[in-house]
Amino acid sequence: MSDVIDLAKELIRRPSVTPLDEGCQTLMGERLAALGFTLEPMVFEDTTNLWARRGSTGPLFCFAGHTDVVPAGPLEQWRTPPFEPTIEAGMLYGRGAADMKGSLAAMVVAVERFVAAHPDHQGSIAFLITSDEEGPFINGTVRVVDTLEARGEKITWCIVGEPSSTALVGDVVKNGRRGSLTGDLLIKGVQGHVAYPHLADNPIHRATPALAELAATEWDRGNDFFPPTSFQIANINGGTGASNVIPGELQVQFNFRFSTESTSEGLKQRVKTLLDRHGLDYELTWTLSGEPFLTGTGALLDATVAAIAEVNGQRPQLLTTGGTSDGRFIAPTGAQVIELGPVNATIHKINECVKASDLDLLTDMYQGVLERLLA
Amino acid sequence: MSDVIDLAKELIRRPSVTPLDEGCQTLMGERLAALGFTLEPMVFEDTTNLWARRGSTGPLFCFAGHTDVVPAGPLEQWRTPPFEPTIEAGMLYGRGAADMKGSLAAMVVAVERFVAAHPDHQGSIAFLITSDEEGPFINGTVRVVDTLEARGEKITWCIVGEPSSTALVGDVVKNGRRGSLTGDLLIKGVQGHVAYPHLADNPIHRATPALAELAATEWDRGNDFFPPTSFQIANINGGTGASNVIPGELQVQFNFRFSTESTSEGLKQRVKTLLDRHGLDYELTWTLSGEPFLTGTGALLDATVAAIAEVNGQRPQLLTTGGTSDGRFIAPTGAQVIELGPVNATIHKINECVKASDLDLLTDMYQGVLERLLA
Ligand SMILES: [Zn+2]
Ligand SMILES: [Zn+2]
Repeated sequence: MSDVIDLAKELIRRPSVTPLDEGCQTLMGERLAALGFTLEPMVFEDTTNLWARRGSTGPLFCFAGHTDVVPAGPLEQWRTPPFEPTIEAGMLYGRGAADMKGSLAAMVVAVERFVAAHPDHQGSIAFLITSDEEGPFINGTVRVVDTLEARGEKITWCIVGEPSSTALVGDVVKNGRRGSLTGDLLIKGVQGHVAYPHLADNPIHRATPALAELAATEWDRGNDFFPPTSFQIANINGGTGASNVIPGELQVQFNFRFSTESTSEGLKQRVKTLLDRHGLDYELTWTLSGEPFLTGTGALLDATVAAIAEVNGQRPQLLTTGGTSDGRFIAPTGAQVIELGPVNATIHKINECVKASDLDLLTDMYQGVLERLLA
Repeated sequence: MSDVIDLAKELIRRPSVTPLDEGCQTLMGERLAALGFTLEPMVFEDTTNLWARRGSTGPLFCFAGHTDVVPAGPLEQWRTPPFEPTIEAGMLYGRGAADMKGSLAAMVVAVERFVAAHPDHQGSIAFLITSDEEGPFINGTVRVVDTLEARGEKITWCIVGEPSSTALVGDVVKNGRRGSLTGDLLIKGVQGHVAYPHLADNPIHRATPALAELAATEWDRGNDFFPPTSFQIANINGGTGASNVIPGELQVQFNFRFSTESTSEGLKQRVKTLLDRHGLDYELTWTLSGEPFLTGTGALLDATVAAIAEVNGQRPQLLTTGGTSDGRFIAPTGAQVIELGPVNATIHKINECVKASDLDLLTDMYQGVLERLLA
């Protein structure tokens, strides 16, 4: 059994459902302290974070990740207990095996090997670990980044250990993420009885042409790195429940996943213009989960592509698809950010698992990136 | 204090919230039995009904109405207790004063006076009274009519005592009602994550163009008696509540109020054709509350118009607007049906009331109709 599998199992054994950490960061911290890292735990409200750094000069390479996991779901559906890591037929089973305790173990072991080989490496190495990545994103990476920014501590390069791979470890590197912008729209009408429609103003009837136009709009065509911006209505609710009452209000919640060809401000303005053109009486509030980011070129991307090729002989696909990640909070500081982790086929599902040998390959890839950037 | 006010107060004092009767029909029945009516109480499930008839030959004139009332609502908002009838400044206050215990009192007193003057009148007089008019329409007038139909007992003329008037008693007679047809539409898509819209199929996006077209459709232009058929979406619900999930289904409930220029079958077919043309995957279930009916001409209408003119010197407006009434269950038997009752400004509201002197006028109008048809 390899070092990385042992550590992954130790982490999986801790039932750290968001926002709990259950000692995962202490375990990682002990290993890092032994390498000469300075530990800086940052507890904000219910969230446990760890900032650990080895070295005081630039450039600063950072591994980012999370110790929390999503709930296990129905225990009786798991073939093995979710918090008792088990290897069967070469697969390591357990909640968090792929997202992302396997990555955390690979990061720690990669750094142990790199520091053993290069005790006086260039620049600095850091870990930015949180326990709320699967949660509300309030007291985790956001606040650690705020703390670093306040004291002028700048990350140069960052690998987020999110499970980026689709079939083989390293087949996909995420080198950016789309932005996410949510709109809560309240369309106002005048309530009334269906028998007297002339005394009412049906907000559903008012809204449907505008909603149809929003759904049919081409917001942009994407670019080499991003698919076109997409608009989706996630929730729509109107009506009193009675079949004879015209409702007074309609609530609509929609979400943009947007490319670097659009900006959140631009999208807001276009939606407002469209709604105004339809003559709607409405209230609209916006929640920006993150602007899009892109690491299109640079030393980090070059090192990562080369390290992967050295391990498996393949050139990874660079994608920006999928959901959001904590990379969105780190990229705006000016850091180059990419995501590299194991195969994501089972994340957040029953019987989450990762190929055990993939964690060894991932460790080699992480170490290869360090060799190329800081050796 | 007049007979009619005394009886109206007696009825209001009984808190007969749907489906309760609280002895109202017993009280009316005693008065009618004293006139030689044969009483036939018909209790179906939780609903109390009364069929009372004087005479065995045709033509059969029938007063129809209901003893139940809608709930009082917040008691502290009433200026006088809702079930303690009170006259202030000439207005009789109480739940049911206008809808429709005032009408019931006027019917009984009108018949008392008519029978006293014409003990050997032509044809027959009947009362069809229910306690579920404000409720689910299952065990009330529908079942009494079914019973009459089963034994071949046919109503020739029927006055329903619903509050038809808008400013002055008798200013409006309802000589028909629109039909009411409700559709429950389930539009199916494929649930997914907003980050992967190509793997999902958003039923809200699919539906909005079709809903916009339904809302903009001219179903008919109405006719001399009916306004154009109207379509209203009453309820629309889709979404899991999460802003990042594309829902798998959308539920829409809509209602037609339709004129005699359309039929329920025709409307159903047109909706189906439109939804199919939009390529929607859907389930649609229909609830027909009533086909439209119209009493465009005839002896009942002539007698009513003349009786009103005799009392207040005015010609009533003949309208088919407004909600449904139990007239929809009686008209399909071939009966001529009209609705005549007091001013409806306060029905179903806090501080429901009726002008006390209007009940005397209404009594005169009802009696005038009897004089013209059966004297
Ligand atoms: Zn994750
Ligand atoms: Zn009524």
